[in-house]
Amino acid sequence: MGQNNRQNNRQNNQRESDKLIATLVVIGDELLSGKIKDANTQVLARWLDTQGFALTQVILCGDRPQELKETLSSAWKKSHLLITTGGLGPTPDDVTKNVLSEVFEGELENNEIARKMVIEHYARIDKEWTPKTNSYNLIPKGMEVISNPQGLAPGLAKVALDKDKGKEKLFMAAPGVPRELKAMMGSPFEELLDRVFPKREKTEQVLTLRTYKVPEEKIFFEMMPNLWSDLEKEGKVSSLPQILGVDIHLTFKGSPKDLEEKKRQWQERLKDSPLAPHIWAWEAISLEEFVIQEANKKGLTLGAAESCTGGLVGHRLTNVSGSSSVFLGSLVTYANEVKENVLGVKEETLKSFGAVSEETAREMVSGVKKVLNCDIAISLTGIAGPGGGSAEKPVGMVCMGTASSEVETHQFKFKGDREYLKLRFSEMGLHLLREEIAKHP
Amino acid sequence: MGQNNRQNNRQNNQRESDKLIATLVVIGDELLSGKIKDANTQVLARWLDTQGFALTQVILCGDRPQELKETLSSAWKKSHLLITTGGLGPTPDDVTKNVLSEVFEGELENNEIARKMVIEHYARIDKEWTPKTNSYNLIPKGMEVISNPQGLAPGLAKVALDKDKGKEKLFMAAPGVPRELKAMMGSPFEELLDRVFPKREKTEQVLTLRTYKVPEEKIFFEMMPNLWSDLEKEGKVSSLPQILGVDIHLTFKGSPKDLEEKKRQWQERLKDSPLAPHIWAWEAISLEEFVIQEANKKGLTLGAAESCTGGLVGHRLTNVSGSSSVFLGSLVTYANEVKENVLGVKEETLKSFGAVSEETAREMVSGVKKVLNCDIAISLTGIAGPGGGSAEKPVGMVCMGTASSEVETHQFKFKGDREYLKLRFSEMGLHLLREEIAKHP
Repeated sequence: MGQNNRQNNRQNNQRESDKLIATLVVIGDELLSGKIKDANTQVLARWLDTQGFALTQVILCGDRPQELKETLSSAWKKSHLLITTGGLGPTPDDVTKNVLSEVFEGELENNEIARKMVIEHYARIDKEWTPKTNSYNLIPKGMEVISNPQGLAPGLAKVALDKDKGKEKLFMAAPGVPRELKAMMGSPFEELLDRVFPKREKTEQVLTLRTYKVPEEKIFFEMMPNLWSDLEKEGKVSSLPQILGVDIHLTFKGSPKDLEEKKRQWQERLKDSPLAPHIWAWEAISLEEFVIQEANKKGLTLGAAESCTGGLVGHRLTNVSGSSSVFLGSLVTYANEVKENVLGVKEETLKSFGAVSEETAREMVSGVKKVLNCDIAISLTGIAGPGGGSAEKPVGMVCMGTASSEVETHQFKFKGDREYLKLRFSEMGLHLLREEIAKHP
Repeated sequence: MGQNNRQNNRQNNQRESDKLIATLVVIGDELLSGKIKDANTQVLARWLDTQGFALTQVILCGDRPQELKETLSSAWKKSHLLITTGGLGPTPDDVTKNVLSEVFEGELENNEIARKMVIEHYARIDKEWTPKTNSYNLIPKGMEVISNPQGLAPGLAKVALDKDKGKEKLFMAAPGVPRELKAMMGSPFEELLDRVFPKREKTEQVLTLRTYKVPEEKIFFEMMPNLWSDLEKEGKVSSLPQILGVDIHLTFKGSPKDLEEKKRQWQERLKDSPLAPHIWAWEAISLEEFVIQEANKKGLTLGAAESCTGGLVGHRLTNVSGSSSVFLGSLVTYANEVKENVLGVKEETLKSFGAVSEETAREMVSGVKKVLNCDIAISLTGIAGPGGGSAEKPVGMVCMGTASSEVETHQFKFKGDREYLKLRFSEMGLHLLREEIAKHP
């Protein structure tokens, strides 16, 4: 088995090295000082993955021209595809175009296509652009101009010959504003990829097992000590701790049909394993999407009564497009009087047991099910901290109620800071909804 | 003025180059395939900024040992401080320690301090650790072991002599799990920094102007064409588009007292400028924090009725610790019947004007103010898409109501995808709350 395993690893490495190498350079001092969070890398990484590239490095680099120049020159040598984001804007700290003109040895000059494009971009927001407005029309000589469907500054591209291999390679520069970048990744960038790399394979498949209520170590060292090596025989394995569980990914080359076949095989192999009750999805679907999808299939309506999560359960469910067909509402009753007036929680219950108690959670969920007239309801009341905890009821304690044909209550204790606790509370709440939905025929 | 400006720029560059250079290497294939989002860079970047380091590059690198080794070796040469996150876990894709043993030329061996630490870490979660559990006790020879207050795998550190300059430099390895990293950045890492770099200056100040309802270009090219160069005389300037506005940052060396003085000066200089009505905060405070803080000062209670935002307004307000003293609740009335039953919106209003109308927003906000019995209420009803739009009421249209001494309604149109629209709607709603609070004495 060990030998077999090593052979397979070699095959996988072989496969990896066939792939086209992509590098991403994310430009902006504001990222390095922590003033903003990089919102583009994950989006681009996912996209490159589906487009058949191996993203081998992402470099966050500041606006200092010399350093940026060195970074881009070195990255360009190592990559089939180099993408930059950021620094195309109008203010003096936007230096990308100047640096590109040095790296690719083409002076900045008025580009007629760019000029017309910018005038069009401005017309979309009912404004007139002139060369005095900004220098969006100036483009390094020899570069192509890419339309920006959601913004004003055009993108850039350059196709060059890889001297070592006689093949073409591609540089692309996109704006740093996430929604502009996303729009540009649609047809403008994909068309370029198809033009320069028409023969690339876009056929990598990922089998995803989403688990909950079990830590990573327990899975691989106690429960299923051979799981990792067994999976590794079929591709590249990775394991990712999530909010309340672990995702296991198996990446392999194949068609969507192969993925279906592999899923069936592993479902069969694991169906009697100790891991089985912990697996809640066999695909990379978000928990909120899964809940909405399953409720939709069964024609069930959902509602919530939230205290400690402050609206996060409702927010997550309504992030799913089409949630309005199953989600009726969430009553965020933060103050005790609101729990009484809106949900009918008894003053006595709050006094005797406290707002964070299974008794209150029970009355909250019964109340909200009645008010919203939904099929399944959930209630959450807990202590997100940092204040409000006690020895008996520490920060991280949460009580939940579920109401469907019957009312049940639960108590959990989690660790984390305020925002993380809210997230974990909401995750557990969504799992309870999911379990309730599963009970319905 | 130009000359003066250049002199100042030179001074600023001089200052920058005095700083200690930090590099961050974020390790994990899952980041490069887009399976997860890097949650650590911003936290570490902010921390390094306050600790007096210039973070000049962040490199996201995969789990392939050879590539990681090259990246770390090259980064170590260029940095006074090198930090890695990730790859310290128990599964076979966690290769950081092996690679470190090569980069720093010290074989992996049982470390007694690590062994005892790991046993303690496991005791915290009521578990027993033995050398069979995993290899957390194996540490590259010559490395220090750092306690992990929130997790199980210890961190690592190495102090070395910078051969060129005869000064000490520092390497630190932290786990990739965000809450473990955050906890480690507290005393364990800060003590190390103070030991190795006792003389560093931790005195950089940032003056932040938060604006809204005005685009970046309008500020710097139309409204205040000299603002950028005027600010630049006093430090490093950056401008960052936000959800509904722009943040302007001025970074300079000085004490907290200097920051107060600079703030006063600029408040005076800008008070009659066209930018003045757009500035809503003179510090890097989040909008939700600002709203809670101002309501608290004035002893006002807040409530919301949400439709399109699904609970996001309540979620954002309750992210603020201490929000329970002013925030009473948010009634997320997603379905029309719930708007009628919970808020008392008239069936006729919904029929005649539709759920997304100023008329409905008016009845929603009047209803929620009554039900929650709060001082100020907000309502939001709009179309987050992608479905549900029409020519008359397109995706991105939102109606809002505010109720305080009077009831007012508003209509806005925004662009973006579903999640971004929800965010922009909630941002506008919070601004309306802020404006209402400001009207109160």
